Amino acid sequence: MNRTVFFVSESTGITAETLGHSLLSQFDTVNFEQVYMPYINTELRAKALTQRMEEAADRDGARPIVFATMLNKEIGDILKGGNCFYVELFEFFVDPLAKELGVAPSLKSGQSHAITKPSYYTKRIEAINFAMANDDGIRPDNFHRADVVLTGVSRSGKTPTCLYLAMHYGLRSANYPITEEDFERGDVPQLLYDCKHKLFALIIDPQRLQLIREERRPGSSYASLKRCQDDIRQAQQIYKRLGVPVLNTTTQSIEEISSQIIRSLKENQESGLVSAMKVQ
Amino acid sequence: MNRTVFFVSESTGITAETLGHSLLSQFDTVNFEQVYMPYINTELRAKALTQRMEEAADRDGARPIVFATMLNKEIGDILKGGNCFYVELFEFFVDPLAKELGVAPSLKSGQSHAITKPSYYTKRIEAINFAMANDDGIRPDNFHRADVVLTGVSRSGKTPTCLYLAMHYGLRSANYPITEEDFERGDVPQLLYDCKHKLFALIIDPQRLQLIREERRPGSSYASLKRCQDDIRQAQQIYKRLGVPVLNTTTQSIEEISSQIIRSLKENQESGLVSAMKVQ
Repeated sequence: MNRTVFFVSESTGITAETLGHSLLSQFDTVNFEQVYMPYINTELRAKALTQRMEEAADRDGARPIVFATMLNKEIGDILKGGNCFYVELFEFFVDPLAKELGVAPSLKSGQSHAITKPSYYTKRIEAINFAMANDDGIRPDNFHRADVVLTGVSRSGKTPTCLYLAMHYGLRSANYPITEEDFERGDVPQLLYDCKHKLFALIIDPQRLQLIREERRPGSSYASLKRCQDDIRQAQQIYKRLGVPVLNTTTQSIEEISSQIIRSLKENQESGLVSAMKVQ
Repeated sequence: MNRTVFFVSESTGITAETLGHSLLSQFDTVNFEQVYMPYINTELRAKALTQRMEEAADRDGARPIVFATMLNKEIGDILKGGNCFYVELFEFFVDPLAKELGVAPSLKSGQSHAITKPSYYTKRIEAINFAMANDDGIRPDNFHRADVVLTGVSRSGKTPTCLYLAMHYGLRSANYPITEEDFERGDVPQLLYDCKHKLFALIIDPQRLQLIREERRPGSSYASLKRCQDDIRQAQQIYKRLGVPVLNTTTQSIEEISSQIIRSLKENQESGLVSAMKVQ
């Protein structure tokens, strides 16, 4: 079974895509053709989209699903009138919230992903720059300035996770690659022990690691299964000595790992280990 | 007025945070204290959260708002029973969708941000690696392999935007910094003209640019207002000659700029300029 899904909004469409995608994930036996349609902010664009709905309905033999966050009623009504199963994601929530808060909604679109709080936005951008400048252990002397430090062997997922933490939570993220040198010494530098309260170790299945390294340096000893297995085994011994949380990047996405790191940092924060941290 | 808001989920909580945050943005006169609570996946954690609800209610003089995506009824009921205004974000949508699709929901939590489609997940991670390896014009000869290329003067927002496009849309993103050398020549290399169909230029207010550069190299001529104004003026002349879309990073977030880029690439795609692209 194939069904086309449109994520539609007057602005970025990120909210429609996120909730819509979550809802679809409950129906994993259906094959969804997902189409992201941001900036449907004119009647002309809305009408063009109803045309695409017809094409999708013909192709799939069933009307498309539309996940929308439309605050403009005129444009929303055009979409709703199209040949689709229309789901307005704000519909059930805005009025009850207004009542609870005793405040009328602004009905302005595009507020959610706009720069409404410049200080928090600047913090996120600075965190991204910090992550770029402190990737791959370039500046271990900067670890004391980081909110979170990751460690792991080469290609275990440190960089994407650091970037996600910086981009979404405004966390100044750094990472330290465990290398041959650490294995020879049988330990990592004292600097890592000093930031144990904000340090997380990444692990990955050796088979998966081999595939990733093979892509990077085909046929190298660096990419051999034996070397990957050795690296992981020795890294695990070091993690044990460090006594830090170990997260598996084979089975978990950067979103899941980041959320677990946030949860763990919060727990440390509540026990007074790290300074206060909020979403924004 | 101050109100505490909890974003709660059995898994990452990203959906609850995204839709909850969108809804809150409609009430910009209220000061929300936003608390992100992922992995509330045991009754014990749920009970601890009801305790925090009481503390928030005492502090604010009004019960907290809870945005939740709880598929586990037992845990959800504990939260719902707490002193809060409880908003279950899946509630109104799962059953109507099940009826429309003729399929029962799996009721498995954490599917939305898990690695359910390894090929798409791998594509995203590879796009991040590509963005890292092709930042700051390191490899202009790689532009033909990129899905999107950004250009702009130093510190105009190229890197964070490239990383966002890679992380969220799996787009192989590269960027080219316009420098003194281009100004002296009065033009950019032919390579940029060759990728015009996927090229976007970034602009930023000179005052804002000065602040950012001043942070990076305090007191330098690079950070002077005069230099920033000159850079922007000369860049604009080059953009005009290139004839590519110009996006403003002073007023728009990386989310907004990325969505506009996606929309524009889609339009080029529909007109046959670039190859097919979907959300996933």
